[in-house]
Amino acid sequence: MADDLRKGLEGVLVAESGLSSIDGDAGRLIYRGYSIETLAENASYEEVLYLLWHGELPTVDELEAFTASLNDERAVSDDVLATMERLADAGEEPMAALRTAVSMFSATEPEVDADHEDLEATLRKGRRITAKIPTALAAFERYRLGEAPVDPHPELGLAANFLYMLSGEEPDDVAAETFDQALILHADHGLNASTFAAMVIGSTMADIYGAVTGGVAALSGPLHGGANQDVMEVLIEIDESGKDPLEWVEEATASGRRIPGFGHRVYDVKDPRAKILQRRSEELAETGNSKWYDITTTIETYLSEEKGLVEKGIAPNVDFYSGSVYYQLGIPIDTYTPIFAMSRAGGWIAHVLEYQEDNRLIRPRARYTGPEGKEFVPLEKR
Amino acid sequence: MADDLRKGLEGVLVAESGLSSIDGDAGRLIYRGYSIETLAENASYEEVLYLLWHGELPTVDELEAFTASLNDERAVSDDVLATMERLADAGEEPMAALRTAVSMFSATEPEVDADHEDLEATLRKGRRITAKIPTALAAFERYRLGEAPVDPHPELGLAANFLYMLSGEEPDDVAAETFDQALILHADHGLNASTFAAMVIGSTMADIYGAVTGGVAALSGPLHGGANQDVMEVLIEIDESGKDPLEWVEEATASGRRIPGFGHRVYDVKDPRAKILQRRSEELAETGNSKWYDITTTIETYLSEEKGLVEKGIAPNVDFYSGSVYYQLGIPIDTYTPIFAMSRAGGWIAHVLEYQEDNRLIRPRARYTGPEGKEFVPLEKR
Repeated sequence: MADDLRKGLEGVLVAESGLSSIDGDAGRLIYRGYSIETLAENASYEEVLYLLWHGELPTVDELEAFTASLNDERAVSDDVLATMERLADAGEEPMAALRTAVSMFSATEPEVDADHEDLEATLRKGRRITAKIPTALAAFERYRLGEAPVDPHPELGLAANFLYMLSGEEPDDVAAETFDQALILHADHGLNASTFAAMVIGSTMADIYGAVTGGVAALSGPLHGGANQDVMEVLIEIDESGKDPLEWVEEATASGRRIPGFGHRVYDVKDPRAKILQRRSEELAETGNSKWYDITTTIETYLSEEKGLVEKGIAPNVDFYSGSVYYQLGIPIDTYTPIFAMSRAGGWIAHVLEYQEDNRLIRPRARYTGPEGKEFVPLEKR
Repeated sequence: MADDLRKGLEGVLVAESGLSSIDGDAGRLIYRGYSIETLAENASYEEVLYLLWHGELPTVDELEAFTASLNDERAVSDDVLATMERLADAGEEPMAALRTAVSMFSATEPEVDADHEDLEATLRKGRRITAKIPTALAAFERYRLGEAPVDPHPELGLAANFLYMLSGEEPDDVAAETFDQALILHADHGLNASTFAAMVIGSTMADIYGAVTGGVAALSGPLHGGANQDVMEVLIEIDESGKDPLEWVEEATASGRRIPGFGHRVYDVKDPRAKILQRRSEELAETGNSKWYDITTTIETYLSEEKGLVEKGIAPNVDFYSGSVYYQLGIPIDTYTPIFAMSRAGGWIAHVLEYQEDNRLIRPRARYTGPEGKEFVPLEKR
């Protein structure tokens, strides 16, 4: 058994964790014992961050202090802003810009010399990263549009403040709440590839800035964080085709085209996060344009019922509804994955902290399949 | 067995690889079938890069074309230089600055829109990264000293050119050869933590820029790439103590102090790379100051013979001799780990390419140890 190849590490247990648990058969996700539905309905993203990092939901006083400490750390340095402006001018991808921004945050870290094993210091650094990501990302978006960045709004929560820094206008309550819910839903999800990348980096006792930078890098991959953009691009394609959505999806599947936003390695049934976002999409449709909600539900019904995907364990995942929700909130499509990163940073930091508490360097092995005993031939005789 | 916890993934086979093989009992390391001793003695770092990336040592023509293509890509953008200058002024750590530099390289990538599955494009991107790392790192070092960066020297190989860009002066043959050997010795080493971090990121089909950025982040950790600096700091401490090295090490071990540069998860005997670097250190001592060589050999002999560490499987690792070699080459101590990254980037890129050829998303599991079924208490009642 020890010599079995475990490619992709599917099913391999690499750590114990009290952070989140996924029941892929039941379609259930919990954070520290609370169902994701309960948290999305009743808590704020800040409360969920506190829960993930500290193990318990905060009291009123704890939440006030925690929120204040996050708000205090929102500003990013002129160096970060200057680099975001340069990268925007150079046409850099938003996820690559965010990766660079997070990497640069360490340059102004006041506790740079803290002992790597001082996990309280790591937690404070993680809080700074989480507070600064929305500011750097919004600044990059503004620079891309040729506009000046908007300073953080001291009275707004993390979700509402991001929408404010993006547009320069305070979002209405529905938009702010919807976005806050989306952040809660994406905050943690077991040892997904980006979380695991952050843990592998963290297992060298590297700085948390490096671990989160690696998380952003992993999340940018099309097999991981990129699918919510793909879904929205398909929805727009359907809309622009002028066809009835049902007709479009019939034709697309007949021609063998894969529809993004379906299927997940962990879930065999509908992703619980998709259900919640579907309801938000429906609510946004009621007050605005119902087009996107109608297209998504038509596709879901067709694929699930007509094509029998549900019986094959292929059901809508979180990306299937998040795309249209973000679109309805007016967020640029190529910012969807960075928003995922903004939220998941909370999970990355929580997992690195948890792992480093009882750290063991993560160093697997490869089975060597190359040649042995090769004779060196000097360059001129090759 | 499937539910066994494999913390640290020690001994877990996550991939097949034809790149490098380590025999920890025999103290043997091979790259694609060639012993590390043979390559260090006879090949250049460029030949080893070609070997790792293409599977065979290059012919004269292939090496010429390959070297030219690397040299063509050495320049970094003004944006990267400006950010390096800002980070130097802000007192950023060299490994963090390098992480940011690599992350920024993607902004000028001419094939940014290449299909993620086009591994030939990924290889070309990898070549660009490898060519640019020495330039960005040397520029950062120059800015820290308040000096202007030195443009790459078109006639010098990668190793000699780095030393040239660092000091502004062409290195002598011994220095250039020694540094080239050090780069060869550090280029690959199975699935160490930074290589594995790069693979996890690459397994999402993320951009190779992100994978190498993650590799730099992981290598910066004190449990991974930082030990060669620690060794040199101890050697300087011994020198400055004015004590006889033997007396110093007797006292230090008697007081329970751990001497860095000894022991490795994979090797039970002396690291073959340490043996080669020890010889280089001896050669440098013959033409210059023998102090550092004398101190290291005194420590090694004492720990191995008097303290019996060798019998316990704790022997000098690559870091034990690389520190003093770099010091003798006049390289600043906190640049040792970035130099490790400069070399290991070749291995990271090779492993990501090899893994992506038959890719499978790396997503392990954690055993959930947290609570279940927690009742949500509203904020004001907590």
